[in-house]
Amino acid sequence: RALRIAVIPGDGIGQEVMPEGLACLRAAAARFNLDIELDEQFKDWATCDRYLRTGSMLPEGWKETLAPYDAIYFGAVGMPNLVPDHISLWGSLIQFRREFDQYISLRPCRLMPGIACPLANKKVGDIDFWVVRENTEGEYSSIGGKMFPGTDREVVIQETVMSRIGVDRVLKYAFDLAQSRPKKHLTSATKSNGISITMPYWDERCAEMAKGYQDVSVDKYHIDILTAWFVLRPELFDVVVGSNLFGDILSDLGPACTGSIGVAPSGNINPEGTWPSLFEPVHGSAPDIAGKGIANPVGMIWAGQMMLEHFGYKEAADIMMKAIETALESGGSQVITPDLGGAGTCQSLGGHIANLINKL
Amino acid sequence: RALRIAVIPGDGIGQEVMPEGLACLRAAAARFNLDIELDEQFKDWATCDRYLRTGSMLPEGWKETLAPYDAIYFGAVGMPNLVPDHISLWGSLIQFRREFDQYISLRPCRLMPGIACPLANKKVGDIDFWVVRENTEGEYSSIGGKMFPGTDREVVIQETVMSRIGVDRVLKYAFDLAQSRPKKHLTSATKSNGISITMPYWDERCAEMAKGYQDVSVDKYHIDILTAWFVLRPELFDVVVGSNLFGDILSDLGPACTGSIGVAPSGNINPEGTWPSLFEPVHGSAPDIAGKGIANPVGMIWAGQMMLEHFGYKEAADIMMKAIETALESGGSQVITPDLGGAGTCQSLGGHIANLINKL
Ligand SMILES: CC(C)[C@H](C(=O)O)[C@@H](O)C(=O)O
Ligand SMILES: CC(C)[C@H](C(=O)O)[C@@H](O)C(=O)O
Repeated sequence: RALRIAVIPGDGIGQEVMPEGLACLRAAAARFNLDIELDEQFKDWATCDRYLRTGSMLPEGWKETLAPYDAIYFGAVGMPNLVPDHISLWGSLIQFRREFDQYISLRPCRLMPGIACPLANKKVGDIDFWVVRENTEGEYSSIGGKMFPGTDREVVIQETVMSRIGVDRVLKYAFDLAQSRPKKHLTSATKSNGISITMPYWDERCAEMAKGYQDVSVDKYHIDILTAWFVLRPELFDVVVGSNLFGDILSDLGPACTGSIGVAPSGNINPEGTWPSLFEPVHGSAPDIAGKGIANPVGMIWAGQMMLEHFGYKEAADIMMKAIETALESGGSQVITPDLGGAGTCQSLGGHIANLINKL
Repeated sequence: RALRIAVIPGDGIGQEVMPEGLACLRAAAARFNLDIELDEQFKDWATCDRYLRTGSMLPEGWKETLAPYDAIYFGAVGMPNLVPDHISLWGSLIQFRREFDQYISLRPCRLMPGIACPLANKKVGDIDFWVVRENTEGEYSSIGGKMFPGTDREVVIQETVMSRIGVDRVLKYAFDLAQSRPKKHLTSATKSNGISITMPYWDERCAEMAKGYQDVSVDKYHIDILTAWFVLRPELFDVVVGSNLFGDILSDLGPACTGSIGVAPSGNINPEGTWPSLFEPVHGSAPDIAGKGIANPVGMIWAGQMMLEHFGYKEAADIMMKAIETALESGGSQVITPDLGGAGTCQSLGGHIANLINKL
């Protein structure tokens, strides 16, 4: 059966990069004869514009409507000048993660050709790892409250909640991913020397899980020194797994260390496929450059590449990756977008990559 | 009256770098006629050796004995092959922090001459900021527990606790520090878009505190993107303040970004002076190189420099800093230690700096 994708471009540059992402996916589908349905009926979903018109980011019944799709191909959301982020984000993206139990957040940290690395003396190939983040529980609970408000005794409490089911399933995903890679190496982010209840539990479950993966080498670092190693020795890493908060931090820091925060993709994954997964670029809606036609479409295209890889279309995904790399490396300054020092446009770079997918 | 300092070298290279730190402090005291008493009677306190002999890291009555001192000048603790870290650390350093209410942890992030920066294209002067960390509450509570152990329903909970007193006093310290600096800029680390109870409270107290510091410019970043900015634009920062966990992360990441994690100092401060503060190098006891005489003494000496600055001996502190920088820049390969590419020893580098303090 066809892979059914709900296309939601969202706000700001989401609307500009999406057509390029779709063109590249169509090119890959045509070349490899993939049966992919890209449903574009969701043009105004998850937009602040819709919120201002109707009072909600998504129409009623959104969950039932989206549930049958295999994935959501998502642009970006947020127009902080018009709608506060806690409304736009929590009314759309965060709803998708929670309601569709997208308990894995997955992000590549990879040095790309043509993109300056903020770390000294690194070259393409040196940095290439994945951050796997728990995406539903942990530090992001909404349990807690305030006592003695407005007085000197004021105290505020918030609970971190880790369940065996929640911890084990993200560890399993990360171990499986590590096992599938040549280095077979997994790094667990912890802080059991300071956060003395939940983090030792995380360590314990990780040690337990490791028993089932004798061929995966495992180490753990406390989050403080781990962030230091991301900067000092990023070559060490292959798959890095962390709790909701630690994964959130590492999955911004990792792409920052490779200079790729503007072009990296992100997967919010429900591995069993009970619910749709969501693939999006890491960059946001970038209101400051929206409408100018100069947004870099690589994050959107790379998110599509990740989506194909996730669903097992390896050959097509490999060509898409190669097309992205080739374009960044040798597209030339008339094609490359201004954020990377070129004079090209969103369309010139997107079109160039789509062409390469056809003929590489 | 004399400044009374309890000298505790501790484990591993703590014992080697301490004599160099003391020599430099003595040189500064002699030159500027400072009345400083360096009490060396604590040679085996906070050592794993003592723990193995007596069953505890510190003698009974340690708190009463140390309480009258103005500060503890501390080397390092830990010999993980002999004694687990949770015993050695929690039985000494962490006790000091808690019992002496050292509610500020303070660390400089500064590019030093002669030390390679892991970030590309940075030069001395580009990076120079402080991380101020809350050091007593927040995410490091010991409240919580486990339910349904050993079953699929297993769930572990740990509470983050922020009190108005605890949050306000660290913010006040950070604002005062920012106000004393030329840039007068403060950055607050938050995560109020995800950690939805304690972090909005942190933001609220920060906004309230800011009202009393009209001359300080304030911004806040979510911790995920803040770690990215540490790598991408460290020039932005002047004083960065964070909760116990966020401060812990940023105060390793910051020194990592300047390549100075092996030479940076750390202050654990009780600002009112009700209890002794503690100054130490960030590097640990480094059992792998202990006894070889090649440990870099700069962290220990810089910690002494920070201590003098804290107690208002600005002239002496400035000369110590200049001596450290001059030695790193032009000490030459026979003086500089192997970690920085030289062939010198702990003594050659320490002696060189002490000499410079005499005559610069
Ligand atoms: C050893 C550990 C508990 C400690 C901390 O997290 O406070 C350390 O990382 C530090 O920063 O001094
Ligand atoms: C917007 C925010 C709640 C979110 C998170 O922390 O999960 C973001 O930082 C992300 O990583 O997608």
